[in-house]
Amino acid sequence: MTRIGFIGLGHMGNPMATHFLEQGFPLYVYDRIPAAVESLVKRGAISAINPAALAESSDVIITMLQTGEQVSTVCLGPEGLFEHARANTLIIDSSSIDVARSRQLHELANKAGLVMVDAPVSGGVAAAKLGSLTVMVGGTAEAYERAKPILSVYGKNIIHAGVAGNGQVAKICNNMILGISMIAVSEAYTLGKKLGLPEEKLFEISSKASGQCWSMTSYSPVPGIIDNVPSNNQYQPGFTAQMMLKDLRLSQEAAQTAGAATPLGAAATSLYTLFVNQGQGDLDFSGIIKLLK
Amino acid sequence: MTRIGFIGLGHMGNPMATHFLEQGFPLYVYDRIPAAVESLVKRGAISAINPAALAESSDVIITMLQTGEQVSTVCLGPEGLFEHARANTLIIDSSSIDVARSRQLHELANKAGLVMVDAPVSGGVAAAKLGSLTVMVGGTAEAYERAKPILSVYGKNIIHAGVAGNGQVAKICNNMILGISMIAVSEAYTLGKKLGLPEEKLFEISSKASGQCWSMTSYSPVPGIIDNVPSNNQYQPGFTAQMMLKDLRLSQEAAQTAGAATPLGAAATSLYTLFVNQGQGDLDFSGIIKLLK
Amino acid sequence: MTRIGFIGLGHMGNPMATHFLEQGFPLYVYDRIPAAVESLVKRGAISAINPAALAESSDVIITMLQTGEQVSTVCLGPEGLFEHARANTLIIDSSSIDVARSRQLHELANKAGLVMVDAPVSGGVAAAKLGSLTVMVGGTAEAYERAKPILSVYGKNIIHAGVAGNGQVAKICNNMILGISMIAVSEAYTLGKKLGLPEEKLFEISSKASGQCWSMTSYSPVPGIIDNVPSNNQYQPGFTAQMMLKDLRLSQEAAQTAGAATPLGAAATSLYTLFVNQGQGDLDFSGIIKLLK
Amino acid sequence: MTRIGFIGLGHMGNPMATHFLEQGFPLYVYDRIPAAVESLVKRGAISAINPAALAESSDVIITMLQTGEQVSTVCLGPEGLFEHARANTLIIDSSSIDVARSRQLHELANKAGLVMVDAPVSGGVAAAKLGSLTVMVGGTAEAYERAKPILSVYGKNIIHAGVAGNGQVAKICNNMILGISMIAVSEAYTLGKKLGLPEEKLFEISSKASGQCWSMTSYSPVPGIIDNVPSNNQYQPGFTAQMMLKDLRLSQEAAQTAGAATPLGAAATSLYTLFVNQGQGDLDFSGIIKLLK
Repeated sequence: MTRIGFIGLGHMGNPMATHFLEQGFPLYVYDRIPAAVESLVKRGAISAINPAALAESSDVIITMLQTGEQVSTVCLGPEGLFEHARANTLIIDSSSIDVARSRQLHELANKAGLVMVDAPVSGGVAAAKLGSLTVMVGGTAEAYERAKPILSVYGKNIIHAGVAGNGQVAKICNNMILGISMIAVSEAYTLGKKLGLPEEKLFEISSKASGQCWSMTSYSPVPGIIDNVPSNNQYQPGFTAQMMLKDLRLSQEAAQTAGAATPLGAAATSLYTLFVNQGQGDLDFSGIIKLLK
Repeated sequence: MTRIGFIGLGHMGNPMATHFLEQGFPLYVYDRIPAAVESLVKRGAISAINPAALAESSDVIITMLQTGEQVSTVCLGPEGLFEHARANTLIIDSSSIDVARSRQLHELANKAGLVMVDAPVSGGVAAAKLGSLTVMVGGTAEAYERAKPILSVYGKNIIHAGVAGNGQVAKICNNMILGISMIAVSEAYTLGKKLGLPEEKLFEISSKASGQCWSMTSYSPVPGIIDNVPSNNQYQPGFTAQMMLKDLRLSQEAAQTAGAATPLGAAATSLYTLFVNQGQGDLDFSGIIKLLK
Repeated sequence: MTRIGFIGLGHMGNPMATHFLEQGFPLYVYDRIPAAVESLVKRGAISAINPAALAESSDVIITMLQTGEQVSTVCLGPEGLFEHARANTLIIDSSSIDVARSRQLHELANKAGLVMVDAPVSGGVAAAKLGSLTVMVGGTAEAYERAKPILSVYGKNIIHAGVAGNGQVAKICNNMILGISMIAVSEAYTLGKKLGLPEEKLFEISSKASGQCWSMTSYSPVPGIIDNVPSNNQYQPGFTAQMMLKDLRLSQEAAQTAGAATPLGAAATSLYTLFVNQGQGDLDFSGIIKLLK
Repeated sequence: MTRIGFIGLGHMGNPMATHFLEQGFPLYVYDRIPAAVESLVKRGAISAINPAALAESSDVIITMLQTGEQVSTVCLGPEGLFEHARANTLIIDSSSIDVARSRQLHELANKAGLVMVDAPVSGGVAAAKLGSLTVMVGGTAEAYERAKPILSVYGKNIIHAGVAGNGQVAKICNNMILGISMIAVSEAYTLGKKLGLPEEKLFEISSKASGQCWSMTSYSPVPGIIDNVPSNNQYQPGFTAQMMLKDLRLSQEAAQTAGAATPLGAAATSLYTLFVNQGQGDLDFSGIIKLLK
């Protein structure tokens, strides 16, 4: 059976890696934090002392890290993956990192004789636990076909977004719309309420009209409107404001590189920065409505 | 049969009034522009020489005007409706005007012994012709019940938004989300494309993900993605950028009155102002994507 | 000697009116709040029971009110100035109100046989006490010449900004720049500090370079940089954030009427709205730097 | 006499390097573009075939390049400065590059036994020709003292901004204020004019009031107000919109790294992006007023 190497065992990585154990894959794991490793070793994973050691025992290697720099270090550093992985190993980077770096890593992977896909996910911890993440994949058609059965262990909706880096592009474009529309909905609810329009009434109207959006109809920032959303639970995440800010920043970094004008993306980034700097970064991103009140 | 008075026979008012003729209502009409009146008289309407004369022959009076000042003049001016309408006449204002003025008109209507609802519409010229407008109604429950069968002549989805002025509030809140999300989707498509992500691919991904919104899935600013939208026809409206700007300005005026913070609503208003000032106001509002390219 | 009528005896009006007493003018006063009137009567002013009574004893009438609606009521209401002032009375409105209303009042004053100037002031309470306000005057050259000696009782720099309403236009344009540049300076200090650049160092550099502006070199939002500014005194005003927000709103209202694009003016308005809504409206407007930290 | 190596001979670098020739310094030059080199060789400079060769003959090396990547290549690449410069060589980077990269280069220079300052300039081509640039210097006090006499060849106002990278920080903070205030002034002039306030009148008022800023009083975006500014010459630069956009992007990149909220900086960046994307990048940055009209 395919031997899986998994690097990065945090809030997302832990449940993602766990699915491989549950489905009987041999699983090699690595994380800088010993406690994160131990949690999986207890359930049957094998600890590797560094990425190089993990690479030597793995047919497919998955990285799920916080920052682009971490991914670079794991791939390119001393005792890194790219030097020690065997020829033709499949590298799946499910981290959300900047597009330029992702594309550079693809190139270096190719030079090292490896096969790579970028495969960032959306859906948050809840979907990670259920194995129902949405996965946006960048890379060649062949690489995508090879990665798909592996990705289906933690993902449900797995989409080929095109060439190297396009998984990252798709994710930041989608999440830029999401961040903006969450603020838009929050502004509308707040404005309406101050003018005497009950929130339920605006929902009743706009959910079936041209103001409809996922932020309104699937993830309401106002409590008591729809079921099973963080606003009903005092904005316990879910998907934190800090994580939304990270994705918005990636979108703005990419916009600068590409020379694209994203005025509302930039404004949304500023607003989430204000919110996070006011100490609210651990709330769900729909908590941004509190900034406006 | 209920005698209808209809004031304001422009692009929207003309098809709306026409439905009353088609359903056999006695129809009295008034507009400052003789040609607008004639078009309906030819089909059986009776021309009134001023609002006062129209008021004397009507059981229900509908106004469909461009600006709040025009509505005030028609209602309160010399030879105006409020002085000449008979007691208990139902006044339906389907114009989009500012909330404060609408609420003031409600009060004055009450003092004059009239019954009023504000009932702005959405859906544009196309829905006006089909009699399938969405109508957001503000006023008492009794007034709403009395207006509903009349409104159903030109509207399909007729919603009671609450007290006097709430129809206007609902419309500006909905359209503020719409204006923002149309720009958000345009930014995402533009950014994605510059980074090498084909627009069809972003649509395929986000239309089923957390970036989904009506602006993307029902009114794409990118041509060739979905059928029957203005972008497929070089942004011939539809709902013009100028009309979107009018609604955004009403939202910002109301936000100032209410002391509500609407940072993205304000930014969207600025962007539509730039677009209109560049001579593009007659394009469909989804043409805003051209500003970003 | 010219008999002065003064309406509006708040934080600004009180010291402004006091200068007339000190210089020996007969002074008639009116305010809705009895305590405000009494403070001046004790020092020799004569209380009028309403604007009409005040008008009958005054050669020149000055209004210094909070809102445009208050000015309209005082001028146009029952027992209002315009009906009861004698022909050729000079009306000086030193309130900050919206341009459209100011221009309408000019027209109605003319029709009533009165002479009017709009003459909003800047400089805050400190300058009001010193009689050193800056006064921006709109109206005919003749009206300006007639008003100038009266205005010099409370103003030092008295400028004819042009036709009716131009005093208001000048003030909102100036204060829109001020509000924006205060935020700009605050952003730069905050960014610099987070990157390790001491605030004194940025001041040393930018105060002599292309980033120089009044907000930096005369009214520093960072304490300890220059003398005699509210930031040195925990942002005790000075000119409150609430008052800045009022002027920014007037600028945005005028921009909408004029069809002008003011994207940074709009963004600054949103930021001051957030700040005021967080309960900080009574701080000096330079306290906006606290929002960014 | 100190032997100078100068790398990067573009619009800025050419006049800066020329001053060294004029003052009799031995000058070694390098640029990727042969024509740029030739122009200086004709006047007495010595051409080096690559940075390494230049390093071997220079006591002080100045880099004046377009992008951070170019600086990294010149310093760190094969045949790069850091490997080939002799111990204790002074490296002066007068390019405007991102803070993080500048600080990393300082570290690597130290490891290589070199002395470095970052020393970005402001004043544009005109000041470069006059040798009157403002220079903001980051580095140790010793390095600053050693660099100062060299910098005074092309700079007039030479300021020590503090530790490594602080020159870059000072420049982006200053230019962020500049970009914002130029738009602010442009908005105010445009708004005032649409409301009937002549531009000269607003200048007369605000230049002595709280709206005063360098963008208004030293670099008017409206023609005919002050002498010797690009607006008088159809916005021929000067300092191009493209260069302003570059600096604004550096400010936003730094803001993201530092977690600083710069909402107006972000909005200004978006507006300059729109302007440049509309094909106006080669105009002076004060031409942004054309976007608003």
